[in-house]
Amino acid sequence: MNTEKLILAVPKGRILEELMPMFEACGIIPEDAFTDSKSRKLRFSTNNENLDIIRVRAFDVATFVAHGGAHIGVVGSDALEEFDYDDIYTPVDLNIGHCRLSVAMPVEEIEDERKNKTRRSHIRIATKYPNLTRRHYAAQGIQAECIKLNGAMEIAPSLGLARHIVDLVSTGSTLKANGLKEVETIVEISSKLVVSRPALKTRPDEMNMWIERFRNAVKK
Amino acid sequence: MNTEKLILAVPKGRILEELMPMFEACGIIPEDAFTDSKSRKLRFSTNNENLDIIRVRAFDVATFVAHGGAHIGVVGSDALEEFDYDDIYTPVDLNIGHCRLSVAMPVEEIEDERKNKTRRSHIRIATKYPNLTRRHYAAQGIQAECIKLNGAMEIAPSLGLARHIVDLVSTGSTLKANGLKEVETIVEISSKLVVSRPALKTRPDEMNMWIERFRNAVKK
Repeated sequence: MNTEKLILAVPKGRILEELMPMFEACGIIPEDAFTDSKSRKLRFSTNNENLDIIRVRAFDVATFVAHGGAHIGVVGSDALEEFDYDDIYTPVDLNIGHCRLSVAMPVEEIEDERKNKTRRSHIRIATKYPNLTRRHYAAQGIQAECIKLNGAMEIAPSLGLARHIVDLVSTGSTLKANGLKEVETIVEISSKLVVSRPALKTRPDEMNMWIERFRNAVKK
Repeated sequence: MNTEKLILAVPKGRILEELMPMFEACGIIPEDAFTDSKSRKLRFSTNNENLDIIRVRAFDVATFVAHGGAHIGVVGSDALEEFDYDDIYTPVDLNIGHCRLSVAMPVEEIEDERKNKTRRSHIRIATKYPNLTRRHYAAQGIQAECIKLNGAMEIAPSLGLARHIVDLVSTGSTLKANGLKEVETIVEISSKLVVSRPALKTRPDEMNMWIERFRNAVKK
């Protein structure tokens, strides 16, 4: 058996609340510091001698798994669809982290947009997801000029940066607070278990054990 | 006079502490919510009727200014050098936010690296700054294969993701806590005042007033 520890990469933030019961069902108990939001630690031991957890940015989980820095990961389908990763296999939909990627725009401009029946051939959009956005509009024959932002997309329309935004929407309260309304859902999002293909080849027993545990832990 | 408010974009986080005394010297008093780290507001009024402040991600400040979403911005030279922005003018070095972009690697591998005198032609690096990094190494005839991470670069070497990282270094304590040591400084960083070139043309009086105020507020 390979004595190098398996590394499980999980995203910081909101998703951890949904992930903790799933860890329990998988028999994974992280060290206390893991749930301490003030801890600056990045790597955590677990009750499993051969499994450590790293907590990284949501957009970095798949990068770690794809480049051999982690063997298993939990990652939103938004990141998987935005980036092209080789050497990643996605065996389990974890049925957590549900939200949607949507187009939104200022409430007061929606009526105007409807009246203007002429189909636009070009649209300017502020988003964290330029690749997904361009693909979505290209399929409708529309060229999307994307302004890549890392946050605060919802402020863009009021500043004239772009009339439309494409962003993750959960309850819709952030949009509402900024005078925006969802006008189209691009894709439904949930978190997936991703695994490194090379690790699956070199350590099949351990890897398949964890895949099975996560599969069984998914709420029916 | 143009009645549309001028928008000043500033980065979230650490830099705000250094920026507040500078605002005071410029005669800018933001509304109270601005210094409340719990506030979810993105846009703030000031004592100046014609000036609002937006607080966005450090990497997004220049994007807002470059695309007309903000007229003035405070941005680290790291972001300016990493991205290619048109329509941005950088009139004042604010002499705050000092740090450096450096190469770091595991302490125990430095001696090994020194012994190995053969010049490498290829190097793998985890960084938030792939463009800056590639340019730096290309000038030395080395091809840098960059793995783009958004955070937690310092954990990459211990996980075998990359032997070297290129990251911002201030005190060096984060590197030390992760068993890494700085081996080369790529560039010294400080925050700059950036302004929109189109705004400078269409609203020269206001824009030049603010540039002058910030210039005078810089600590000698």
